[in-house]
Amino acid sequence: MEGKVVLLDLWASSFAMRVRIALAEKGIKYESKEENLFNKSAFLLEMNPIHKKVPVLIHDGKPICESLVIVEYIDEVWHDRAPLLPSDPYQRSQARFWADFVDKKIYGTGRRVRTGKGEDQEIAKKELIEYLKTMEGELGDKHFFGGDTIGFVDVALVPITSWFYTYETLGNFSIEAECRKLIAWSKRCLEKESVAKSLPHPEKIYGYALELERKFRSA
Amino acid sequence: MEGKVVLLDLWASSFAMRVRIALAEKGIKYESKEENLFNKSAFLLEMNPIHKKVPVLIHDGKPICESLVIVEYIDEVWHDRAPLLPSDPYQRSQARFWADFVDKKIYGTGRRVRTGKGEDQEIAKKELIEYLKTMEGELGDKHFFGGDTIGFVDVALVPITSWFYTYETLGNFSIEAECRKLIAWSKRCLEKESVAKSLPHPEKIYGYALELERKFRSA
Repeated sequence: MEGKVVLLDLWASSFAMRVRIALAEKGIKYESKEENLFNKSAFLLEMNPIHKKVPVLIHDGKPICESLVIVEYIDEVWHDRAPLLPSDPYQRSQARFWADFVDKKIYGTGRRVRTGKGEDQEIAKKELIEYLKTMEGELGDKHFFGGDTIGFVDVALVPITSWFYTYETLGNFSIEAECRKLIAWSKRCLEKESVAKSLPHPEKIYGYALELERKFRSA
Repeated sequence: MEGKVVLLDLWASSFAMRVRIALAEKGIKYESKEENLFNKSAFLLEMNPIHKKVPVLIHDGKPICESLVIVEYIDEVWHDRAPLLPSDPYQRSQARFWADFVDKKIYGTGRRVRTGKGEDQEIAKKELIEYLKTMEGELGDKHFFGGDTIGFVDVALVPITSWFYTYETLGNFSIEAECRKLIAWSKRCLEKESVAKSLPHPEKIYGYALELERKFRSA
């Protein structure tokens, strides 16, 4: 079942981090091909002609795109170990709902905190805290969103925590002060090797964010 | 397994249409509770406190929100008939990818055709045609996106075709002239009772769209 697994990757991409965590949770060996956002490879454009974005998982020559689609694929193909989605259909629907919430609300708002100015940035900061508090409500007293082990929602959300230092620095506010429960959860996630080795150091992300900003401004 | 099924519904909502088609494909009896976009029921707000939107499926008292999440739930719970997602993990990932493409690209662009003015509207019209042509490429020579029968991508996409008349009238252009293959597909879908009874008449949608526009302008 293993087959050849290749990941079109980008170290700082939260969406690529999701796939790296899922592959690590399952113990799947793969080849990572690092992409450059400003000079995409012909291979990436061939493998993901629709969105032209990382991550792309290539399994036995067949490409799968979009991070949550990839994580579900990994969970279905390697279903005999470290399940990420619950087996009960209702619980599965709830995990999908929350992963979708993370995609629809949290990532875009984080980007607005990073790139926004003045009042736009203030609104984005408030919204980000509100959405993170909503996630704290869903976490409740559980150890992970997946319960006792890391699940689909943990994989969806935890990568963005490596960007919190960047948001806090550029937005001049503290996420930790407002969302202690979520920060405690992110620290529990980082105790897992699968997460620790998939998330870059927050200060390295910050350097990358500054570089991104410079390149976009001069583009 | 049946249990009590209630749908918080809205006749003109493409997202609610998806759920109605899936329920009809599976032959599931349910109670439809029609919601009013401008005066949402306390029950809707209780069942979907996060997004406060239709559709919500309530199965044995438990709510499921977000149309694609609901359609997958229906497919998993009533898996013994009219499968919507393929059983092969790779094919499943591709169906999820295209349904996600429909959500990310086509619905928002349709809204911009409907509500946009001047150059914004012209850009949205071009983008909509481009995205629909992308879907035609994915359809290829197949009868339906799901192959010989209606599948997840058909359920995701076909509702918006009931809005095409509205887009064409408000945007003063012809989708049919540019996307003959997709229009032929939508007609094949409408030969299915599950689709025909779930999609309102395009002219009724147009009346609703004008009413929406008036209410939003006076709000």
